[in-house]
Amino acid sequence: MSQDIWSKEQLDSIRKMLYPKSIAVIGASERNRYGERFLNAVLRSKDRVRIYPINPNHKEMKGVPCFPSVADLPEAPDLVALLVPQSTVIDTLKACHQKGAGAAIVVSGGFAERGTETGRELQREIGRLGRETGMRICGPNCLGVANVKDNIWSTATSKNPSGLTGHIGLVCQSGATAYGPFVAQAADNGFGFSHIISSGNETDLEFADYVRFLLDDTDTHVIGGFVEGFKDVRKLIAVAELAAERGKPIVLVKIGRSESGSRAAASHTASLTGSDAAYDALFRQCGIIRVNDYAELLQVSNYLVHSKKPKQRGVAVVSNSGGISSLTADSLGNAGIDLPALTERAHSGISDILKNAGWAANPADVTGFASSDHFPRIMDLLIEEPTVGTLVIASQAVGNRVTQAEQVVSLHQRSDKNVNYLWIAGRRDESGLAILKNANVPVFYAPEDLARTLKTVGDFEERQRNRSAAAPELPPLSASQNEVVARLKSTRDAYLSESDSKKILAAWDVRAPAERLCTSAPAAVAAAEKIGFPVVLKVDTPDVPHKTEADVVRLGLRSAADVTRAYEEIMANAVRHAPKAKINGVMVQEMVTGGVEVIIGISYDAQIGPMLLFGIGGVMVEIYKDVALRRCPISRADAANMISEVKGAKLLQGFRGRPPADIEALMDALVQISRMAVHLAGHLSELDINPLAVLPAGQGVKALDALAVVRK
Amino acid sequence: MSQDIWSKEQLDSIRKMLYPKSIAVIGASERNRYGERFLNAVLRSKDRVRIYPINPNHKEMKGVPCFPSVADLPEAPDLVALLVPQSTVIDTLKACHQKGAGAAIVVSGGFAERGTETGRELQREIGRLGRETGMRICGPNCLGVANVKDNIWSTATSKNPSGLTGHIGLVCQSGATAYGPFVAQAADNGFGFSHIISSGNETDLEFADYVRFLLDDTDTHVIGGFVEGFKDVRKLIAVAELAAERGKPIVLVKIGRSESGSRAAASHTASLTGSDAAYDALFRQCGIIRVNDYAELLQVSNYLVHSKKPKQRGVAVVSNSGGISSLTADSLGNAGIDLPALTERAHSGISDILKNAGWAANPADVTGFASSDHFPRIMDLLIEEPTVGTLVIASQAVGNRVTQAEQVVSLHQRSDKNVNYLWIAGRRDESGLAILKNANVPVFYAPEDLARTLKTVGDFEERQRNRSAAAPELPPLSASQNEVVARLKSTRDAYLSESDSKKILAAWDVRAPAERLCTSAPAAVAAAEKIGFPVVLKVDTPDVPHKTEADVVRLGLRSAADVTRAYEEIMANAVRHAPKAKINGVMVQEMVTGGVEVIIGISYDAQIGPMLLFGIGGVMVEIYKDVALRRCPISRADAANMISEVKGAKLLQGFRGRPPADIEALMDALVQISRMAVHLAGHLSELDINPLAVLPAGQGVKALDALAVVRK
Repeated sequence: MSQDIWSKEQLDSIRKMLYPKSIAVIGASERNRYGERFLNAVLRSKDRVRIYPINPNHKEMKGVPCFPSVADLPEAPDLVALLVPQSTVIDTLKACHQKGAGAAIVVSGGFAERGTETGRELQREIGRLGRETGMRICGPNCLGVANVKDNIWSTATSKNPSGLTGHIGLVCQSGATAYGPFVAQAADNGFGFSHIISSGNETDLEFADYVRFLLDDTDTHVIGGFVEGFKDVRKLIAVAELAAERGKPIVLVKIGRSESGSRAAASHTASLTGSDAAYDALFRQCGIIRVNDYAELLQVSNYLVHSKKPKQRGVAVVSNSGGISSLTADSLGNAGIDLPALTERAHSGISDILKNAGWAANPADVTGFASSDHFPRIMDLLIEEPTVGTLVIASQAVGNRVTQAEQVVSLHQRSDKNVNYLWIAGRRDESGLAILKNANVPVFYAPEDLARTLKTVGDFEERQRNRSAAAPELPPLSASQNEVVARLKSTRDAYLSESDSKKILAAWDVRAPAERLCTSAPAAVAAAEKIGFPVVLKVDTPDVPHKTEADVVRLGLRSAADVTRAYEEIMANAVRHAPKAKINGVMVQEMVTGGVEVIIGISYDAQIGPMLLFGIGGVMVEIYKDVALRRCPISRADAANMISEVKGAKLLQGFRGRPPADIEALMDALVQISRMAVHLAGHLSELDINPLAVLPAGQGVKALDALAVVRK
Repeated sequence: MSQDIWSKEQLDSIRKMLYPKSIAVIGASERNRYGERFLNAVLRSKDRVRIYPINPNHKEMKGVPCFPSVADLPEAPDLVALLVPQSTVIDTLKACHQKGAGAAIVVSGGFAERGTETGRELQREIGRLGRETGMRICGPNCLGVANVKDNIWSTATSKNPSGLTGHIGLVCQSGATAYGPFVAQAADNGFGFSHIISSGNETDLEFADYVRFLLDDTDTHVIGGFVEGFKDVRKLIAVAELAAERGKPIVLVKIGRSESGSRAAASHTASLTGSDAAYDALFRQCGIIRVNDYAELLQVSNYLVHSKKPKQRGVAVVSNSGGISSLTADSLGNAGIDLPALTERAHSGISDILKNAGWAANPADVTGFASSDHFPRIMDLLIEEPTVGTLVIASQAVGNRVTQAEQVVSLHQRSDKNVNYLWIAGRRDESGLAILKNANVPVFYAPEDLARTLKTVGDFEERQRNRSAAAPELPPLSASQNEVVARLKSTRDAYLSESDSKKILAAWDVRAPAERLCTSAPAAVAAAEKIGFPVVLKVDTPDVPHKTEADVVRLGLRSAADVTRAYEEIMANAVRHAPKAKINGVMVQEMVTGGVEVIIGISYDAQIGPMLLFGIGGVMVEIYKDVALRRCPISRADAANMISEVKGAKLLQGFRGRPPADIEALMDALVQISRMAVHLAGHLSELDINPLAVLPAGQGVKALDALAVVRK
């Protein structure tokens, strides 16, 4: 699939952008802010890259020959950077294409971010130009790209620190964030990047395109992203699938968790921000790790770069202090991380060293032995525990304890499990800290940060181990399903009646209770006798979508007299509630008992497309928002995950002595309804099955009520 | 109340410990680890404090005369520090008392933390000695105390950095944590302490005693605590009440959120760790802010020291970058913090400055104007917004922008609202950062940390504003309540039957439905006719506490025939379930409908005492743990808070068209049951009212079922 989306030509153009042999800086300057900064930045690589400042008013600039225009260059440059007024961008790009340039970065702003139609149209034109010419374009309104590992900074920023080389590939829509806090905090912590890409307004190349390129880049092990909105969710999904296949995690900050953030993002970029819960579900589904800010992104990404992916999720903690040991264990435990009790081997091995001091336990307090020749043996005993995958040393390798840092580094280098350090001294106590950082031992400064990162990474690595490669199936439409599509196309109603809604479900094999539509009280009584008491009566009409509020449902009717009275009350209430309603009649329905009531819904997100919702029925959905969401279609494994995400789904397992419910049938129904959601995209706008009764194991599910809303 | 607990003599002894004019160091040494470190530490104040090393083998030590024993000193020292073998501690303390010493610090270890009975008994003896002599004792197994503001470090640690003066008083059971990460991170961040107290095993002076002292200390504005277990919860509550009165917040790390942490804590100190949920409730009730680790404790405490306590909870964000502005707003919004939209005044004022660039909104992106002469005007416009109490500047006052730091400091100094800085450059970009830190502008390095701190502090300040000074009342026992106590004393049953349990409730004015105990089917029918159909039948016996499981409840009986059949089934099932049960008969009960079912429970925490639980009935309590807890007795305001903490309590407000429930009556019941819990302490071990029906407004509450468990 990814080959259909990303051509070799596109990837080659991005390669020229990130690995240029020659760079033309159009609008280079010795005074202007961006023009000068860009020139300064690229000149740092002039020993390896041919640099061409372009400015008609200069013969030379900063010791390099300057050219009046791109046409005058002695060669077709791999990369052109535009730092020119908005109004000249298009013509300049055309000239670059004529010269044969490989790729372009448009630093210039004044496009869609202005919020004007002129700006938006000019931006669209840039995008078309990039796609049509094959000279692919980064920006506009960006700060450029940095090939950190080769030290080629094609950026309009003065913050190009050295020593930042590493394995995180960063793609960031906000240039000020990329070259501001991301770079600053990475430098503070000793984290490193392969590439840093400020993608700006993304009119041509977008987030997923850069990620696709970085998946081929051998020096990039983890991809970090900072995104306000995605241009094309389909491409994001495709690239995430490929990333999972290749074992390169994507760690993402996505603005929009709150209304305040979305409001800001909407005014910032031209992208629409989709509904956040849907994005959250999508990320989970396609293995993207979502984090909350740049600090967390860097911490998690760096951890992933150096993680040895141990299968054991248990953590052992050792400290020179009981208080710190307790606190660290408390943070880890509170995050849901297991600290396995020690085996006899480890316990007695450590006790032999400690004698009466400290605790030979997990967490361990090894007192002064943390800075002794015994410490490697203590660490070995802990990390060799069969259920331990990660050892945390909470201590301070300062002053005369530099050897402890060396002991820890040695273990880190020889173990196939993770070794982490919780640094409890100051950040300026450099000696031991520098040894740990230089050896890429993950260092944390607070127990809560440690716990959060271990939890995030551990959950991710476990999901990846259990990941099934198979994409969800989407079988072709059956005859009856095709009929449904035809019927939906021709309907003029906004809502379908319950019986019509259930006919849709039936075409995707989701059953309803026995029921019969009746247009008189005697017919209802006859139907009830045929179905068997007790029965349920409900009005059937597309014009009363919310039946409870209209008081047109009667449950548990046990006699002909009850049915007759209910029929009359329902018809009276329906007419009173909606005088112009088109009433099909009253539905007499089998009264289903003994099931667990769940809710299943379909909606269509403007960006992400068909979404499936699952939750436990009743007031819990509304009060506790205890629901799981997925993009459709889903696999059976997705269905199982959705069920396990919903706390209230405990009820399905036979809560308080009830029989276990038919979870297999529920998973079938979720998969089928997710397929329906895809098949009916464009025809349906919503569908609610509320409730669906999940009967005891072996007895299947029944849709007790359904409401389809037709797309107009 | 606090006067009954803390005598003037005790506070005077603590004063001598923290403000000594003379210090004797018993076990001073030039070689031994602790003995030398302590001497070094106190010698730093020898220009202000008379220092007496005590060691029979030396005439002089580090240039100061040395004494063979405390008896030989020329004066009674204010403070003695013991760095001697465990076995000589008691005798040494007695000698100090004879000499007239004011207070003692026992650094020596080897007591309860060893887990031996000898250690525990020796420790208890130290405690008795402190209380009986009035020479109050810190420790044992501690690292001593630091009067930071006067630079007197009576500590056995080499980490005594200068420049740490400030307004946080820290009381920490773990010495390695106090003088390790707390001191290191405070130094890194420019936070300051008034005093640092390592309280150790707390055999005499305990956490609450030091806090009580610090409440009188004018340089201490906020009290930080790190606690593994409390010796006496009653004292904690009393000191927290006094702290709230005086407006000095207590910010606390309490180990025990997870089992791993508790396990560690239990092996570390002699204190039992109480159940964590009960502690959480207690802290909330008495205004203690609970945080998760030392980093968060310092951040929150420092914020409180400098907070101007604005009434407005709204936050405005301004940045030089749209991406950072969006991210900051997103983190704040996600934490539940309001970013009010700008008024026309602020919007047009900022637009006039920005022209076409950036966004004149909240959050604001003011582009390069963040480092211009216009910035003070922009900040003024934002902070003057009527619903804004806090302005966040997310930027980097580096390089040529040092003036921005000065602009921010100037606003911070003249505004009566809060000014915070989200620093997006490196921690080593010192120029602007140092200006901000020196002026005590709260600085954050990540949006999530900022959001969490603002949320914690804002919630706390709001609670304090709404705090009612009145302590919960506890009226004396009435005659009928006294009868209940007498009855409980004489009962031999472990469980009380439903009817006996409800008699207890009645004595505290909690009503039950109309009901009658019957011993035959005809009597049950007669009772049902008297009460009115429909009715409920249940067995009444102390021997079947869980009636649903035994199938001895029948609801909604509408006829004499139904009642007769139900009576027989119930008696048969009861006998089958518990053949030896003492069956009082079958209770015929009014069938209460139309109420919202809630659960109210009483339990007794080993440390905290009587606890009241409230939640919404049904499976939600078990699945969502959606409950509120309080220590008893509670006030009506506490009752209201409990109800508002429970998400499911929305059902009480008239969810989905139901009438609003009688919340007033529910609050009355909660208050009454909390009083009952106190009155019956020692007699009762548990009480469950499950469910209590809260009827529509004006109709009160009714206990539909109740189970009291008697303390044996």
